[in-house]
Amino acid sequence: MFTPSELLEKVENALQQVAYPQQPAGLYEPIEYVLSAGGKRIRPVLVLLSYNLYHDDVEKAIPAALALETYHNHTLLHDDLMDHADMRRGRPTVHKKWNENTAILSGDTMLILSVLHLLDTDCKQQKELLQLFAHSMKEICEGQQYDVNFETRNDVTQEEYLEMIRLKTSVLLACALKTGALVAGAPTEDAEILYAFGEKIGLAFQLQDDYLDVYGDPAVFGKKIGGDILCGKKTFLLINALNRADQPLRSQLLSWLQTSQVQAESKIAAVTGIYNQLNIADLCRETIDQFYAEAHACLDQLSVSEERKAVLWDFAESLLGRAN
Amino acid sequence: MFTPSELLEKVENALQQVAYPQQPAGLYEPIEYVLSAGGKRIRPVLVLLSYNLYHDDVEKAIPAALALETYHNHTLLHDDLMDHADMRRGRPTVHKKWNENTAILSGDTMLILSVLHLLDTDCKQQKELLQLFAHSMKEICEGQQYDVNFETRNDVTQEEYLEMIRLKTSVLLACALKTGALVAGAPTEDAEILYAFGEKIGLAFQLQDDYLDVYGDPAVFGKKIGGDILCGKKTFLLINALNRADQPLRSQLLSWLQTSQVQAESKIAAVTGIYNQLNIADLCRETIDQFYAEAHACLDQLSVSEERKAVLWDFAESLLGRAN
Repeated sequence: MFTPSELLEKVENALQQVAYPQQPAGLYEPIEYVLSAGGKRIRPVLVLLSYNLYHDDVEKAIPAALALETYHNHTLLHDDLMDHADMRRGRPTVHKKWNENTAILSGDTMLILSVLHLLDTDCKQQKELLQLFAHSMKEICEGQQYDVNFETRNDVTQEEYLEMIRLKTSVLLACALKTGALVAGAPTEDAEILYAFGEKIGLAFQLQDDYLDVYGDPAVFGKKIGGDILCGKKTFLLINALNRADQPLRSQLLSWLQTSQVQAESKIAAVTGIYNQLNIADLCRETIDQFYAEAHACLDQLSVSEERKAVLWDFAESLLGRAN
Repeated sequence: MFTPSELLEKVENALQQVAYPQQPAGLYEPIEYVLSAGGKRIRPVLVLLSYNLYHDDVEKAIPAALALETYHNHTLLHDDLMDHADMRRGRPTVHKKWNENTAILSGDTMLILSVLHLLDTDCKQQKELLQLFAHSMKEICEGQQYDVNFETRNDVTQEEYLEMIRLKTSVLLACALKTGALVAGAPTEDAEILYAFGEKIGLAFQLQDDYLDVYGDPAVFGKKIGGDILCGKKTFLLINALNRADQPLRSQLLSWLQTSQVQAESKIAAVTGIYNQLNIADLCRETIDQFYAEAHACLDQLSVSEERKAVLWDFAESLLGRAN
């Protein structure tokens, strides 16, 4: 069995060894630029971790791991273009370093390359593997569209929000885990359980991200506190505050969100104060704990040894910052 | 056996019957808008024509035909965004009717839907089918990038130009024909011959488009004459004129192309005059005839009856405006 950091090293090596065509350089250089920028490589590591629950020759799952990482970076590239984001992982985004058309076309090519990587994967259930991947990609586009729709709505329900983050974030983690199981030839029930596990972990992970934006320790969180509040992002916290507040407090919250006349600190403090009045932090923590517990319960049903499960669970805990 | 117009009707019916999800409407409405805009449906008809060389139950090839048409419209959607084109088939383009982000995301989704259509195709050689499709999509992106590169170059060779249009235009026609053959379970040699036939027809077709832009009858051509000259597009005519002209004539040609001080008619007349001096029209017609003859020669080697071949050849002739 391999540790997640050993698997990460295998992913990085494999990414470096992908031989892109030399020409046209204007198409492939941005792709190499994006894929060499590092990151946590969570999705390809999950593919290998899941495969490694069943077999130790994890090299067999490397092409599928490359497919997941290449597709994920395609979504980042196109999302950054749509968000007009200037920086990603400390470097200029592709539409800034090159131009918007390059971001569109090299991004499209990354999606295609991800399908080609998956086709390079030796898997007895290849049709199911491809259907899972294509279906997941479609759901991720749907999640992105819902996220855009929510920007201009103040009546998003918690249920709608959870479905949006399931589509936008959880589905690819779930797909990564099920992909590893399919390539390993795992029992069908295990593949489904791992998919469900990925969904729960993804939901917990995204809610934790929402939580830490307001209540995190900036030194640990790695981002400035209050970023979501400043840009009025519809997070789990904001959606529940809008739904729980009585009319006067709701108006107050909306007017704080709409103002750009005050200092950032005042705006963050005021909105956080309203969250505190409504016990939003507790609600968020309880919901995270619930998904966390549901994820753990999934693993109980898995047909592999406790020792193997522990590696996967420890990795999930480390993602959620719960590792000791 | 079906006629091309019967097959076109089957394609239109199938396109109308595709059930897109109702939600999120912002994602799927632009896709239905694009795919309902008509067009010649050349690629899906080629899939069915090719399948119909071997079997009469053409319904079996419908999902693959939908894959080709959906992917082709994805390329049009993203190309129109990159070209800032306002209109397509008499209607506003998606980034005009909605916005740029919608064009990016709905366009990405169309690519994914095309893969899902192909996965719906019942085919014994499904892995080969998917590899053909993904490899073709990759080459089309490469062709688009070369086309962009050529905009800022005055030293493009005829060889480079032919390779660019092979990638950008021919590959998808070739892919459509080979797809029909693979779904039909045709002999491997036939599948390769049909691919080569598609490449040659695509090259002839694109060169004819270049030719008609200057020498066509506007009533028949359906577009204004001289459009490529006015926007300085690197066509087969311009590339060969730049390569054949002596230094003084080349400078004259380049200065005409760069000027925006004169009336459109004067510019078109001057550049056409230079083409005439250099016998570019003859060169272009000869090259078209050569590809046309090579395409015809491909069909000679095909293992199907002359009667079946004739339907495919007649369709190719009609595309090239050579039908009686």
